[in-house]
Amino acid sequence: MFVLVNLKAYPCDPVEVATAAHEVSESSDADVAIAPQAAAIETVAETGVETWAQHVSPNEHGSHTGSTLAEATAEAGATGTLLNHSENRLKLADIDGSLDAAERVDFDTVVCANNAEQVAAAAALGPDAVAVEPPELIGTGTPVSQADPDIVRDAVDAAAAVDESVDVYCGAGISTGEDVVAAEELGADGVLLASGVAKADDPQAALEDLVDPL
Amino acid sequence: MFVLVNLKAYPCDPVEVATAAHEVSESSDADVAIAPQAAAIETVAETGVETWAQHVSPNEHGSHTGSTLAEATAEAGATGTLLNHSENRLKLADIDGSLDAAERVDFDTVVCANNAEQVAAAAALGPDAVAVEPPELIGTGTPVSQADPDIVRDAVDAAAAVDESVDVYCGAGISTGEDVVAAEELGADGVLLASGVAKADDPQAALEDLVDPL
Amino acid sequence: MFVLVNLKAYPCDPVEVATAAHEVSESSDADVAIAPQAAAIETVAETGVETWAQHVSPNEHGSHTGSTLAEATAEAGATGTLLNHSENRLKLADIDGSLDAAERVDFDTVVCANNAEQVAAAAALGPDAVAVEPPELIGTGTPVSQADPDIVRDAVDAAAAVDESVDVYCGAGISTGEDVVAAEELGADGVLLASGVAKADDPQAALEDLVDPL
Amino acid sequence: MFVLVNLKAYPCDPVEVATAAHEVSESSDADVAIAPQAAAIETVAETGVETWAQHVSPNEHGSHTGSTLAEATAEAGATGTLLNHSENRLKLADIDGSLDAAERVDFDTVVCANNAEQVAAAAALGPDAVAVEPPELIGTGTPVSQADPDIVRDAVDAAAAVDESVDVYCGAGISTGEDVVAAEELGADGVLLASGVAKADDPQAALEDLVDPL
Repeated sequence: MFVLVNLKAYPCDPVEVATAAHEVSESSDADVAIAPQAAAIETVAETGVETWAQHVSPNEHGSHTGSTLAEATAEAGATGTLLNHSENRLKLADIDGSLDAAERVDFDTVVCANNAEQVAAAAALGPDAVAVEPPELIGTGTPVSQADPDIVRDAVDAAAAVDESVDVYCGAGISTGEDVVAAEELGADGVLLASGVAKADDPQAALEDLVDPL
Repeated sequence: MFVLVNLKAYPCDPVEVATAAHEVSESSDADVAIAPQAAAIETVAETGVETWAQHVSPNEHGSHTGSTLAEATAEAGATGTLLNHSENRLKLADIDGSLDAAERVDFDTVVCANNAEQVAAAAALGPDAVAVEPPELIGTGTPVSQADPDIVRDAVDAAAAVDESVDVYCGAGISTGEDVVAAEELGADGVLLASGVAKADDPQAALEDLVDPL
Repeated sequence: MFVLVNLKAYPCDPVEVATAAHEVSESSDADVAIAPQAAAIETVAETGVETWAQHVSPNEHGSHTGSTLAEATAEAGATGTLLNHSENRLKLADIDGSLDAAERVDFDTVVCANNAEQVAAAAALGPDAVAVEPPELIGTGTPVSQADPDIVRDAVDAAAAVDESVDVYCGAGISTGEDVVAAEELGADGVLLASGVAKADDPQAALEDLVDPL
Repeated sequence: MFVLVNLKAYPCDPVEVATAAHEVSESSDADVAIAPQAAAIETVAETGVETWAQHVSPNEHGSHTGSTLAEATAEAGATGTLLNHSENRLKLADIDGSLDAAERVDFDTVVCANNAEQVAAAAALGPDAVAVEPPELIGTGTPVSQADPDIVRDAVDAAAAVDESVDVYCGAGISTGEDVVAAEELGADGVLLASGVAKADDPQAALEDLVDPL
């Protein structure tokens, strides 16, 4: 099971969360990765944890002030990237371009989507995985697997109908080990979460609870 | 064969082009529609021609100053809309939302895309049609059917693999009857064009030439 | 006193509101203008009321699918435009470009802004007027003149410090004649409003109440 | 004289350029700063050079996946930020918000603009400096001071008319010591450059040439 912890722009200590994630990843059956702010990729990667960018631009090298170049995040230590998170929605053509950029640096890729139709569309662009994250559940603490399990099942079916090699992750509201197990039982290959770990008093304990039932 | 003439922001007389399009549509086997500026939909629709919006927003009724409400374009006489034109690329989630908006008013819909992957993604969202328009050919006068016929074939295959009920249109560089026939032979159900008609000295003659070989 | 009624994407009958606005404008000391959806500019302008666009793009004639060309809104009957409404915020360079576009067609222009600093910035671009509309008050029914009169005074001072020829309008929460008088006493040359008229059961009565104390 | 070298998304070695910039800064009358990709801020700052972000978002701590949080760039070692570069134009309200974000972390700020009107608008928002960079000259090697010296003079006057405490920098086409001197003589307090140093075979030699006549 893949567990991606998105640190967003939270006021957490990214190295503390990364260190905890690395330890849990080493001592459990889960692969835990951390997606920090671009400026923190290097210090996070130095902990040894699998490190992801929160976004990379579709641009190649060139005159693109203020964009996030895939090569720059790779150089800092990232090995994967989120794309089209509901807080950073992208144009269809730019998701396609950012996947090309990610491929240049051999990144793992997850394209987020709100519903089964968008999951199918995202899968058609050839990412490693798609994530279904109903925007109305983000940050609620109510897992999508509980609020509306059909969304996850439909997403799994929609992705498979387009491209069976694309994994499906489940986001929004995941905060306990039960949520992770429920996601797995609905067919998800991984989970995305954020505040449940990043804002926890003890991120390591939160992560251990999360992967305990696996 | 469906022929959609996109007037963009050209300095043409929309009523003159619309009148010509209506006459050609009545006297040929082609269905010719006109997509004018939103502010010109009403005068264009009054000519009797099939009238399209160039874009509708994903919004419903509400506080959305400066957006193009699907209902307002329908009230003015439009019956279809372009979406995600390369000059007006949309976020994936907004293409999905704008298709929902178009459905509220029973519009025909065409989602534009640059390549076969994006065509497949667009088809997954359930529009009536997708249009493949390689950006590098737009406005060149070199038809995509001639510059790179495989793009059209790949688009037709990609859309069919996702949803056989979605039509495929061919855009970019179409300006003669031969181009239209070539598009048809490659499997396209329609063509999108702009300057070839909108900037012609005699739009009606340009349209007659275009549909003559059908 | 200038009163601009922004119809946004509301489900109102634009012709009914426009007809009411025209009558009130003729029979009072207020100049009442209506800003409908772009697709409704023509029918609104035919009532004889002063008609505004909710937005015009910075583009000139050309290949700009889905944009709102100033010339097209002028041709349909508009004589002014809102710019940078809080529901349609623009890049600084595009406000500058849209003001140039508006000048090409001799439009009156109002650039919206959230606070005194942005009012000063907007005034530096040379519009006919700026409007201060604190986003937190929009749609609340609490007029800015009452919630925070200093914002209006500061905006008037900020605009005057940059360019004394730029008028200042007051938006957000205006719904009664008292609100209009309060705005006038704080130094505003006009008011912007929306739901108070557009969603009223009797738009003409709402407008009459609004201008009655002038 | 302040010299800001914007590394954009160029394929240069940011540490090599930063090391050169630090040495030149120590051994000349110029203050040379480097603006690398966000992911490279930490390694660049470790060279000892003054390090800038190419952009910071207007967001505070919170749920803002994929944005560039001012605090994260400060934590990595940045002490200033560019804003509204012509390759990354911002909404007026977001320039205002990003200046607030920069202030939270005590950053120096430069807001870019295309012409004197936009320079005045930017100055009204209270940055430390504004930079005039006519987009048509960026990357040309023709310095604005030579192509159109009046643009620089007008920018200096426009900024001073709004706020005398705001410095004016000159960008676009700067590549030699003569260009820097010309900018200084026109009233500029600093220069912005990019390819002239970042793409030089010998960045240190390029920087030494640049500051030599000061």
